Amino acid sequence: MSIVEQLAIKNEKKIVLLVMDGLGGLPMTKGGKTELETAKTPVMDALAVESECGLQTPLGIGVTPGSAPGHFALFGYNPFDYPIGRGVVAAMGINFPMKAGDVAARINFASRDENGNITDRRAGRIPTEKCAELCDMLKSVHIEGVTVSVKPVKDYRAVAVFKGEGLSDKVADTDPQATGVKALDPKATAEEGNRMAKVAREFVSQVNGILKNSKPANTVLMRGFAELPHIPSMAKRYKLTPVALAVYPDYKGVSRLVGMDVIDGLSTLEDQAKALKENWDKYDFFFVHHKYTDSKGEDGNFNAKVSEIEKVDAFLPSLLNLNPDVLIITGDHSTPAFLKSHSGHPVPFLIHADDIRPDDVTHFGERPCAKGLWGNIPGEMLIRLALSYSGKLKKYGA
Amino acid sequence: MSIVEQLAIKNEKKIVLLVMDGLGGLPMTKGGKTELETAKTPVMDALAVESECGLQTPLGIGVTPGSAPGHFALFGYNPFDYPIGRGVVAAMGINFPMKAGDVAARINFASRDENGNITDRRAGRIPTEKCAELCDMLKSVHIEGVTVSVKPVKDYRAVAVFKGEGLSDKVADTDPQATGVKALDPKATAEEGNRMAKVAREFVSQVNGILKNSKPANTVLMRGFAELPHIPSMAKRYKLTPVALAVYPDYKGVSRLVGMDVIDGLSTLEDQAKALKENWDKYDFFFVHHKYTDSKGEDGNFNAKVSEIEKVDAFLPSLLNLNPDVLIITGDHSTPAFLKSHSGHPVPFLIHADDIRPDDVTHFGERPCAKGLWGNIPGEMLIRLALSYSGKLKKYGA
Repeated sequence: MSIVEQLAIKNEKKIVLLVMDGLGGLPMTKGGKTELETAKTPVMDALAVESECGLQTPLGIGVTPGSAPGHFALFGYNPFDYPIGRGVVAAMGINFPMKAGDVAARINFASRDENGNITDRRAGRIPTEKCAELCDMLKSVHIEGVTVSVKPVKDYRAVAVFKGEGLSDKVADTDPQATGVKALDPKATAEEGNRMAKVAREFVSQVNGILKNSKPANTVLMRGFAELPHIPSMAKRYKLTPVALAVYPDYKGVSRLVGMDVIDGLSTLEDQAKALKENWDKYDFFFVHHKYTDSKGEDGNFNAKVSEIEKVDAFLPSLLNLNPDVLIITGDHSTPAFLKSHSGHPVPFLIHADDIRPDDVTHFGERPCAKGLWGNIPGEMLIRLALSYSGKLKKYGA
Repeated sequence: MSIVEQLAIKNEKKIVLLVMDGLGGLPMTKGGKTELETAKTPVMDALAVESECGLQTPLGIGVTPGSAPGHFALFGYNPFDYPIGRGVVAAMGINFPMKAGDVAARINFASRDENGNITDRRAGRIPTEKCAELCDMLKSVHIEGVTVSVKPVKDYRAVAVFKGEGLSDKVADTDPQATGVKALDPKATAEEGNRMAKVAREFVSQVNGILKNSKPANTVLMRGFAELPHIPSMAKRYKLTPVALAVYPDYKGVSRLVGMDVIDGLSTLEDQAKALKENWDKYDFFFVHHKYTDSKGEDGNFNAKVSEIEKVDAFLPSLLNLNPDVLIITGDHSTPAFLKSHSGHPVPFLIHADDIRPDDVTHFGERPCAKGLWGNIPGEMLIRLALSYSGKLKKYGA
């Protein structure tokens, strides 16, 4: 049992963890500012003045986090102790009831030509409604000894869950990551994956038959085969009653993996503000997730990322009105527009509570936070600070 | 397998690690500056402006590194996982072909009087040529079941390698670290060292016979008995193609231990600059080592150490002309002239690359770097930063 699990106690104090996905950034030009340093964030800046600030690395110095491990670190779970496959995140994201031994895989509906070569890995980015229709058509897939469920996620993305004896996630992706070539044959990456590879091969073959005359989506690509790992809940580890307010399915997925309740049906920051208020009395840990800082970073759109940060700043007063006892603002990793991808650069954070020692950071940004009270710390430590500053960790030893 | 080993990928980006041995220093008087703070370093200062700066401790806070572990940390190998005996470093430094099970020991040629008491632990610092002659004389040593090779290193220093069954490095030094007393008897520090202790005793006895009439060197002191450990190469761990440009044998030795190519025949910074340029297309990791900052520190010569730092500053433009993608400048430990020895004080570093967040450090020095972006980090982390900032680490997790 971890030391935090040994010491955690329940009380009435409320913690909010606000995550701007891919928050950390870089200057676009020498001598320039990062996205967060550029953004006009009067609310965050005022908070920073009354907060302890620092930088955190979710997976340690220099390592670039995927979305799931970045969030696991923020939830206080060592990401290397809990490797999470993409298929499981997708299945949990749509609240599909997986059990131990089930295998989930992400599905992209895709287009292929008469020779079987992939012409579009996303089938022209079909809308979610079309994706749902296709998933319905795949109900006729029948594989001996295996139950297959294919469910829509978003746009061209779906998830397939396979239930049956002797399945394993030791199967490589079939997505060739390129067009003009055939999808890869599902291959076992270890002996125990042999049966699942065979099942996946049969699945793809039947899908190709069923979707033969469908346009533009007439095939599927499979990625991130994954089994459900055993993960102790935040309730068990921290004695928290946690809830997630996220728009995107994957972040609902990682939240469900650690046992959070998830408020469904949220599309905007306004929805999230409203849901926060409505659920304020029911929970003591609120995970609020904003996706678009990451999306704009991935697009390489510096100004749009700045603008997303400013939107979150404008949303903050509705959160502050609820008077959380502890508020953490940070990101799950960096997604600098300069790189158009996730990166390993440290992520700024602030933590606001009553019993803290505010530093002299007056603007919430990467370099100001580097001079904050905490310097550089592992991302995993934030939950310990939150529990500590809300009196939820009792003393260790006599 | 370490996380970095799992994530490392090959690309064309070039990394330079410039090590000024024993770089870190101390003020000689209250209120004074360190050697590096005193040195006029216009090139390093200009670099610092465009870099991320910090302090690093190779072996953790407060621990004084020897040369080998200090470098191992910089190469990203936890020095406590890979304890390297001095004998092995010496043997690798002269490129002596050691194999698993062989035992190497450093040899000092020394002087002793008719009572057997040591009168000079360095035999008047005989030149390398004399040392080579003496080593030649020791070819007549014959020990049953053991092959002994004694090779010159530099000045009064040589290395002995013992090959045979049942040898072990569990033998204590014979150097008494004082004059006017006898050399110590080779003692096993554990049961498996018994045979090697006996072999070493026989070796010293035969050497004393052979050198009976030699002056001033008429005996040997043995230090750092060591077996060749198994060390994964930098090529395996990081997918790098590394090369070392070092003048001193020991630093070639530590480089060979991690599988670096070594450019031989370099004597000056000018040689190193020329070799860098000539080999620029062949490698993607360049370890450039400057010894004399450490030597001057050991001598207690503050001004001479300052001057060595300034020489390296003057050398830097030839390196910068090559446009390395990532440049790290640091030391393997501190050797303050004030202490005339290695010390555990943190070592300043700067890291220069395109995708960084330059801090406001404008002079490369201990206390300016303490206010840099990174604060205090383990020395082992530098290689992760270098790999990360050159795009050589892929993302972890979905």
